[in-house]
Amino acid sequence: MNFMEERIVKDGIVKAGNVLKVDSFLNHQMDIGLMEEIGREFKRRFADKQITKVLTIEASGIGIAAFVAREFGVPMVFAKKSKSINIEGDMYVAEVESFTHGNKNQVIVSKKFLNAGERVLIIDDFLANGCALQGLISIVESAGAIVEGCGIVIEKGFQIGGRVIRNMGYRVESLAIVDAMDAETGKITFRVQENA
Amino acid sequence: MNFMEERIVKDGIVKAGNVLKVDSFLNHQMDIGLMEEIGREFKRRFADKQITKVLTIEASGIGIAAFVAREFGVPMVFAKKSKSINIEGDMYVAEVESFTHGNKNQVIVSKKFLNAGERVLIIDDFLANGCALQGLISIVESAGAIVEGCGIVIEKGFQIGGRVIRNMGYRVESLAIVDAMDAETGKITFRVQENA
Repeated sequence: MNFMEERIVKDGIVKAGNVLKVDSFLNHQMDIGLMEEIGREFKRRFADKQITKVLTIEASGIGIAAFVAREFGVPMVFAKKSKSINIEGDMYVAEVESFTHGNKNQVIVSKKFLNAGERVLIIDDFLANGCALQGLISIVESAGAIVEGCGIVIEKGFQIGGRVIRNMGYRVESLAIVDAMDAETGKITFRVQENA
Repeated sequence: MNFMEERIVKDGIVKAGNVLKVDSFLNHQMDIGLMEEIGREFKRRFADKQITKVLTIEASGIGIAAFVAREFGVPMVFAKKSKSINIEGDMYVAEVESFTHGNKNQVIVSKKFLNAGERVLIIDDFLANGCALQGLISIVESAGAIVEGCGIVIEKGFQIGGRVIRNMGYRVESLAIVDAMDAETGKITFRVQENA
């Protein structure tokens, strides 16, 4: 097991309905040392890429993406989920459905912060049905920028998102891929990965 | 001028309606080097406090609070703005009104991540009418924890929040206090601060 799988086994909690709670270290309370380790690991995995920007989506992606951007020495941009009166002017917009909240959101990035030719690494905490990630990818492509890859902390391998995005030809690196969870026993089965 | 005031003058944009856009470096695109500098500066200002946790609110507070927490070597917790199906069990809840979005939100922190006696530093990007900050303070007090102070990146000194919170007896450190803005000339007037 790598450091992420170990942490999930140690502190993650499996709940009914295929819910994996990681709120004690990832998406409510954040272990900053872990964030730094995640940043270093994505730098290692995408070391062959000349990343110029890290893109994520609010809210839980922000803390992770910030430490990835720090490793690459580039700015981080976080997409916003609904139109704010403070966002104006030209924006890239994609519509995505939230698995967690069961509603639709507009995902928005100001055109000022994504330029043609930029080499973008997309970061998010979870990949499940892939809707948020598809929204971010479509925004990068709209800008004429290049999706160099997607870095995911936890992929739910039993949902369709990872397969869909990889089948589209994008490189997806997930620190942990959960292939099965059992809410009764708490057992988590990870996919064996070469690079992990 | 300190580093924050200088950056606001350089890259902030004053819009009609007392809107200060800092989305190129603070709350849409994030300059990670600046985040690190903000982290170090709050560590310096609250060096006399034994902080055990940094608390903020999603979304734009997260990136800032993460680097403050890194300086103190403590975990960061971000309050969530609406009830998610992934949050369950006992939660501290406060109701706050958003100046930016003009709506009311429930601010939620899981009871697991705030314990009695903890020494909390609250961090946010903006302080305007102070509703979000009051919500976070009320949550910390509900937990029996101690508000050691509030660290704000940009305070709108012409709005009531800073005065209300300081009058309640809390220590508020703002890296930049904007006392006036002129959308026509773009001129920003900062309050002169001793510690800045």
